[in-house]
Amino acid sequence: MLVHEWEPFNAESPRHALAGRLTTGVESFYSRNHGPIPHIDPDAWRLRVDGLVDRPLTLSLGELRERFAAREIMATLQCAGNRRQGLIEVRDIPGEDPWGPGATSTALWTGVPLADVLAAAGLRAGAEHVAFSAPDVSLLADPPQPYGGSIPLTKAISGEVLLAWGMNGRPLPQAHGAPLRVVVPGWIGARSVKWLREITVQAEPSANYFQATAYRLVPPEAQAGPGVGVSLGPVALNCDILRPDGTAPVPPGPTEVTGYAYAGDDRSVVRVDVSLDGGRTWEQAELDAPVSPWSWQHWRLTVDLPPGETVLTARAWDSTAATQPESPASVWNPKGYVNNSWARLHVTATP
Amino acid sequence: MLVHEWEPFNAESPRHALAGRLTTGVESFYSRNHGPIPHIDPDAWRLRVDGLVDRPLTLSLGELRERFAAREIMATLQCAGNRRQGLIEVRDIPGEDPWGPGATSTALWTGVPLADVLAAAGLRAGAEHVAFSAPDVSLLADPPQPYGGSIPLTKAISGEVLLAWGMNGRPLPQAHGAPLRVVVPGWIGARSVKWLREITVQAEPSANYFQATAYRLVPPEAQAGPGVGVSLGPVALNCDILRPDGTAPVPPGPTEVTGYAYAGDDRSVVRVDVSLDGGRTWEQAELDAPVSPWSWQHWRLTVDLPPGETVLTARAWDSTAATQPESPASVWNPKGYVNNSWARLHVTATP
Repeated sequence: MLVHEWEPFNAESPRHALAGRLTTGVESFYSRNHGPIPHIDPDAWRLRVDGLVDRPLTLSLGELRERFAAREIMATLQCAGNRRQGLIEVRDIPGEDPWGPGATSTALWTGVPLADVLAAAGLRAGAEHVAFSAPDVSLLADPPQPYGGSIPLTKAISGEVLLAWGMNGRPLPQAHGAPLRVVVPGWIGARSVKWLREITVQAEPSANYFQATAYRLVPPEAQAGPGVGVSLGPVALNCDILRPDGTAPVPPGPTEVTGYAYAGDDRSVVRVDVSLDGGRTWEQAELDAPVSPWSWQHWRLTVDLPPGETVLTARAWDSTAATQPESPASVWNPKGYVNNSWARLHVTATP
Repeated sequence: MLVHEWEPFNAESPRHALAGRLTTGVESFYSRNHGPIPHIDPDAWRLRVDGLVDRPLTLSLGELRERFAAREIMATLQCAGNRRQGLIEVRDIPGEDPWGPGATSTALWTGVPLADVLAAAGLRAGAEHVAFSAPDVSLLADPPQPYGGSIPLTKAISGEVLLAWGMNGRPLPQAHGAPLRVVVPGWIGARSVKWLREITVQAEPSANYFQATAYRLVPPEAQAGPGVGVSLGPVALNCDILRPDGTAPVPPGPTEVTGYAYAGDDRSVVRVDVSLDGGRTWEQAELDAPVSPWSWQHWRLTVDLPPGETVLTARAWDSTAATQPESPASVWNPKGYVNNSWARLHVTATP
């Protein structure tokens, strides 16, 4: 893991740990935290479901597993700050970690659909958002507060949002949210709240700092603040290069370039291009079909790498035939979110 | 109207006819045709529904209106070739019309949901696509053939796809598809087949030239051909400037710049920026909320226009916080589709 901070623990997967793997091992799955990892006694833990519901619920993990049918979903999680490093190279972003392309990982999640739990509680008139609360207190929030967030009801009742206790066929590790976490497929990782303890159905989005102030796209010259900019939800089309990984010289000649591409929510990736000349000409990569509507797609292309330094460039196209913006400068924003400009990797080829 | 061709009739709305209007008047609604406009006797006309259905249907217009509940939907149609002119300026695209930003228009459509008609016919196992056939023979197709196309079943049964006989509260004009046309909200106009006469439920997409060969995004160096490239469906995020319209000098000083922005299918536009310095700095425009999930959004910003020549630049952001690519060069493709690079308009300010 490439560790950005130890407290709170923030670490991304190195390129080689992601390359060519549909799912990411728990040992290299990225960790994005805003406070200390809580220690929760799973036997004493209860999930509370309240707010605009007919029947507030209090459920133990055993009750949750007994009362509702489990579902497995393959889903990629991606931090809104993934690839921030490319923005920092344009202009500094004080106080934010320089995430590379490894703030994204994929797992097979096991849990119960949030939709089923909400149906059991019964939605009342005025229900528009579903808020999630966790116990991990963040000193980085203003004022310091436990982590929280929300999603619109339309997404919450889609059936694809899970309350998950399993990850890659094993129990969810503590570091990734045990005993129970939310998994919101296709949305930024910030909404997949870990160590879930309360679900509140409400008329408005969560007032939590991480919903109302952070995780919003703010125009370049504006100051982040409550309600400023656009709240981030579904993940924008993005891609990056995983192999070669740029950490060591490679031999010149035929070289397989691989990477991932991902488009959130209902979109899929339909094409990936690779360029050796900075985007003047492109060659189309072989692209895997999506394994689920919410999983990344790997791609590969064998290029003829000349001796010396080359900048490998990659870009993806989504199912609307939209592609990524060219330059990180044109998507720079004060909090450093959603860098989905073309992927660029410097590689050195020495015989 | 700005007429590109008289036979077949192809004409776009001038900027001033679109500016500031949620719906586009029938007299200036863009027309994109591949063959002659057919003359159909509405009394003799019948709609045939067949293929993978339990009960093939033959319906007169009266039967269609009596048997099914009508629905109104506000939807923007947009030609996949909208803004092709910007691509032609990069590299010539022989045989294709140089559409400006007016190959898009918005209307209130009245009709019955395709979903209801399909339910009445009963879907059989293996149904995956819904094909539409029209009588207008295109000599531009290879080989010459009547116009047709298809959409996936998932979209067809969404409830938002209409079989429409009304436009802006009046009977659908002959030029826009009377007696009945398909309206596929959020998808490229090519799938909203006019003069509909047959709906075929089938396992595969339509083999019609305009589905299998045209209206596909082909890589720059490839040749268009059956199955080459990516079939176009949902409309990519896009925007353009409508006022000033660049046709005549304007006075310098405070000038209201207006335009449209649109993102197909489930996306909405959340922000529009305007730049007077080619994209180095941006100012955020005021943006209308979407009137329906499938309608464009107008925007406006008062800028201080200096004397002389200025290039106005605009770009939109969608609900995933994705924005448009900078340059038409990087999205150039042999058929000239989906130019969703930044909008640029040259204006001259003279006192």
